[in-house]
Amino acid sequence: MSFDEFKPLNEKSLIEYIKATPALSSRLGDKYDDLVIKEVGDGNLNFVFIVIGSTGSLVIKQALPYIRCIGESWPMTKERAYFEATTLRKHGALSPDHVPEVYHFDRTMALIGMRYLEPPHIILRKGLVAGIQYPFLAEHMADYMAKTLFFTSLLYHDTTEHKRAVTEFCGNVELCRLTEQVVFSDPYRVSTFNRWTSPYLDDDAKAVREDSALKLEIAELKSMFCERAQALIHGDLHTGSVMVTQDSTQVIDPEFSFYGPMGFDIGAYLGNLILAFFAQDGHATEGNDRKLVQEKYMRNLFHDSLGFGAAKMIRRIVGVAHVEDFESIKDDKQRAVCERKALEFGKMLLKERRKFKCIGEVVSAIQQQS
Amino acid sequence: MSFDEFKPLNEKSLIEYIKATPALSSRLGDKYDDLVIKEVGDGNLNFVFIVIGSTGSLVIKQALPYIRCIGESWPMTKERAYFEATTLRKHGALSPDHVPEVYHFDRTMALIGMRYLEPPHIILRKGLVAGIQYPFLAEHMADYMAKTLFFTSLLYHDTTEHKRAVTEFCGNVELCRLTEQVVFSDPYRVSTFNRWTSPYLDDDAKAVREDSALKLEIAELKSMFCERAQALIHGDLHTGSVMVTQDSTQVIDPEFSFYGPMGFDIGAYLGNLILAFFAQDGHATEGNDRKLVQEKYMRNLFHDSLGFGAAKMIRRIVGVAHVEDFESIKDDKQRAVCERKALEFGKMLLKERRKFKCIGEVVSAIQQQS
Repeated sequence: MSFDEFKPLNEKSLIEYIKATPALSSRLGDKYDDLVIKEVGDGNLNFVFIVIGSTGSLVIKQALPYIRCIGESWPMTKERAYFEATTLRKHGALSPDHVPEVYHFDRTMALIGMRYLEPPHIILRKGLVAGIQYPFLAEHMADYMAKTLFFTSLLYHDTTEHKRAVTEFCGNVELCRLTEQVVFSDPYRVSTFNRWTSPYLDDDAKAVREDSALKLEIAELKSMFCERAQALIHGDLHTGSVMVTQDSTQVIDPEFSFYGPMGFDIGAYLGNLILAFFAQDGHATEGNDRKLVQEKYMRNLFHDSLGFGAAKMIRRIVGVAHVEDFESIKDDKQRAVCERKALEFGKMLLKERRKFKCIGEVVSAIQQQS
Repeated sequence: MSFDEFKPLNEKSLIEYIKATPALSSRLGDKYDDLVIKEVGDGNLNFVFIVIGSTGSLVIKQALPYIRCIGESWPMTKERAYFEATTLRKHGALSPDHVPEVYHFDRTMALIGMRYLEPPHIILRKGLVAGIQYPFLAEHMADYMAKTLFFTSLLYHDTTEHKRAVTEFCGNVELCRLTEQVVFSDPYRVSTFNRWTSPYLDDDAKAVREDSALKLEIAELKSMFCERAQALIHGDLHTGSVMVTQDSTQVIDPEFSFYGPMGFDIGAYLGNLILAFFAQDGHATEGNDRKLVQEKYMRNLFHDSLGFGAAKMIRRIVGVAHVEDFESIKDDKQRAVCERKALEFGKMLLKERRKFKCIGEVVSAIQQQS
């Protein structure tokens, strides 16, 4: 069997592929007798094969020409695997403790061979829903974001290097367009893709669509998302893109990565943490000059981040793709109560974000609202 | 003689080149007996040949691997001719009345064949220095800027088209870096390239270098210049890049063009008009929801424009490249008086730009200062 053109793998061809690829076969000590293979991906969007042998393990992720949205799949270029692999390597070089190692990338096959994040690693969102506390999470995520954002921005790059890198990632436009639509446009207009906890939030969704001040702010952030090549951002840094144990934090799945505003990553992460907070009630039944410049830069970044974070929250409640935090609250009415609080907070945050001076004030505001 | 590799033209090889190029020879009716050829370029930076025959005329502009800065030439890629030709064609399609037609482009030879802007066309800066009024100038420049900026921005483009175009112009990084240095950095620090009317403005130049609030603002604008791919801007839209008669306005020389902030073009133009105003004393001895979004967008753009315009003013007084407006004032002391007023106004404008609501207020402020 040859792999010189794209074909979806199965368990049999997977082993042939590994055998033919030294960068992968060496990880398994070239032993194939006792391999255990498990497909854990979303089937017709990405294949994710976990391969465990007696002397080593790895994960093979293969992109298929679809991407998930709602429960349905949308056609989407498998070239996204190229951007995912490129960013995993770049971010991995900058923050090796918090990005899984890439062993191999094959652009033709849209295939990434990478470290298997062994148990007890679980998706952060599931841990948060379960009420687990992660003592190193804040420190690890701050380290990951600080290093990946700073060292891919003009705070570190010279312009020549920056423009070359921006050029390369302009190619990931299809995934950027998806974000533009589902984060920045659809939640603020009538769209067949939108959904919310109906009928409880019907009026709330309508109020979002009719709030001129809110739409003014989101339009400005959308423009920044489209135009501002500030740093190589992950592009989809919600709590479902992080795997954790008590002492390990690993950021995965940067297929949406491109040169965009730093605040989009930071905001995505913060927004999803705030969503997790507001979802908890529904689960309770279960359980100098340089200094001046720096300050202004950081203040703008903080406000950008709050804005993008709020955008991320709102779209998760009245936009196309929802989050398990709320979806797993079985009782509609109870879920709606939680969602409305999150939505109101998101709206306030988007409009009033420039009034906040530090994250402590945001935390206080969350506590007052809840 | 072959033209399949780069060679600088002379009057003889120029005629051979035209004869071998139908797009050019046809403009002259294929007649070569009575040609008048005049080289009006800056010699070792660009050749600009005016070619006039009995039945037609044209201009041949050839980039050499240098660019002017101060009186000296700096090494600079002749690939800039590619970006100049591409932008002349793009902006010309959008604003045909205000951009000279391109007849021919040869990337290997870094050569553009284009319309000859016949007399009485002169460089706008010279006209302003001479105190000539141009009744259609404001209307023409507004039309040119509105069309070229709007139709190359995301207000018109979809993201796919926009990212493709941004990618292409990332290649013009060398000229962007020159702007970064001479507009946004050098005037605010000690640099061997800086100069000013010494000793009169020594203290003023020092004050610029020591003004933290000012440096805070310029740093923010520099960041926007480097990161924000808002529209295909001309990139060097001062009054020396415009040729005029009483009823014609033609924008030339977009070799610095790239996807940058709109305000950089608008500001460059406004800043140079204000410079011309402040120079006059020295010459006197001689002679709804959508609506809301739109308003906010335009207000930001206005403030960006004032900021960039102020930056352009300041750098022309204490930065590397000065302008004829002031340079042609022979008496140093008299020139310094004018320059100081312009500088003080530029500084105020950069720091206070967000207080201005319309261009009328800026005009009033200029009149008060003068």
